[in-house]
Amino acid sequence: MMTLYGDPYSGNCYKVLLLASLLQRPLTLVRVDVVGGEVKELIKLNPNAKVPILKWQNADGAAETLWESNAILHYLAEDTQWLPGDALTRARMLQWQFFEQYSHEPYIAVARYIQRFLGLPPERQAEHQAKQAGGHKALAVMEQALSQQPYLCGQQPSLADISLYAYTHVADEGGFALQAYPAIQAWLARIGQWPGYRSMASWDQAEKSPRQGMGQTRQ
Amino acid sequence: MMTLYGDPYSGNCYKVLLLASLLQRPLTLVRVDVVGGEVKELIKLNPNAKVPILKWQNADGAAETLWESNAILHYLAEDTQWLPGDALTRARMLQWQFFEQYSHEPYIAVARYIQRFLGLPPERQAEHQAKQAGGHKALAVMEQALSQQPYLCGQQPSLADISLYAYTHVADEGGFALQAYPAIQAWLARIGQWPGYRSMASWDQAEKSPRQGMGQTRQ
Ligand SMILES: N[C@@H](CCC(=O)N[C@@H](CS)C(=O)NCC(=O)O)C(=O)O
Ligand SMILES: N[C@@H](CCC(=O)N[C@@H](CS)C(=O)NCC(=O)O)C(=O)O
Repeated sequence: MMTLYGDPYSGNCYKVLLLASLLQRPLTLVRVDVVGGEVKELIKLNPNAKVPILKWQNADGAAETLWESNAILHYLAEDTQWLPGDALTRARMLQWQFFEQYSHEPYIAVARYIQRFLGLPPERQAEHQAKQAGGHKALAVMEQALSQQPYLCGQQPSLADISLYAYTHVADEGGFALQAYPAIQAWLARIGQWPGYRSMASWDQAEKSPRQGMGQTRQ
Repeated sequence: MMTLYGDPYSGNCYKVLLLASLLQRPLTLVRVDVVGGEVKELIKLNPNAKVPILKWQNADGAAETLWESNAILHYLAEDTQWLPGDALTRARMLQWQFFEQYSHEPYIAVARYIQRFLGLPPERQAEHQAKQAGGHKALAVMEQALSQQPYLCGQQPSLADISLYAYTHVADEGGFALQAYPAIQAWLARIGQWPGYRSMASWDQAEKSPRQGMGQTRQ
């Protein structure tokens, strides 16, 4: 079985756990305390010292690792419906995933981190505030696309929806009210109905944790 | 012929021009003055209002657009040696491309923009300074990989090398000296020898510009 290092309350890690659940492909979760700085200990697995990290043994018994959440999604989704077969649709899926990493996550995930995980300390309030405009710009781009079609790449769901769901569905925890985005709200509800869907919190109940990670202490 | 909206001195746009040149696949370049704010006028082509943007006519004569530099690279590279056939190598290529957008470009490209294109104005010096540590961290991650193999994904070049070349080869324009990174320097030299390689400046000489873009005025 493959191992995932990460925290289910981190959207980047949750993306991978959610896809694995949708694919009915179990992963061993090793919980990493991101706020507590445990990620630094993983530098041998990821020289960029970030989670999620996927680790497994190849056919020769050697350890392989892969990092970057969206790259991990691609690897796990090979030969499944989550990777569109058509080249243009696949490119559009990547367009949304790069948009997520460049124009969405750095605003919405960072504001959420400051607010939910650090408790909005005074010295980071200006930064939290500065993230709001960029986050709303990203949400407006999504709203426009999703008011024309049920999923980001058209009629069928793809990895793009999983990538952007991860932080959008908890955007309120970063101060982003979703009331003004009805198409996003309908899309979130649609995803929540997928067979195999699991919430971030569901990992607290189901998995044994080798250490006391963020999730447990924050329930 | 496909049209690319962008500026060859923007690394994100240059990536696409470089790949098109390597593939001997000509693109019509419509130069956009990024510093002058012309990108806002392109919101109908890219709701996120960023270049590069690729535009073409599909088989039915309808206009198609694609944005996000790395997604455009994937689309143009379909069925070529630039997209590795093996699933794990392809996932690693994506790993490096997402790393580029999340951990490299936001430091190195932004510092370069402030320094080269805005002339390091006093009100942005603190931001320029704050970008240095993250840029060097990204360069160190690349150095480690490139001291073990000639290209980011191993023996063969891939889109990962094009994506990371774009801003790394002009990192000095953002204040990042590359002396401490011999493997990166050797890799840059290797890429400069590729058949079909073109420099950023080469677009100034070769292409007619429909407007006076950034490039001309900055030669
Ligand atoms: N682009 C990366 C971002 C990963 C990331 O930022 N992970 C955070 C947790 S959500 C982390 O490991 N932070 C620890 C650190 O940066 O020290 C991805 O998509 O995997
Ligand atoms: N993630 C995007 C980034 C594109 C980007 O930031 N483009 C800049 C020029 S290098 C731009 O259009 N800036 C104008 C603006 O943000 O208003 C990509 O890779 O294509």
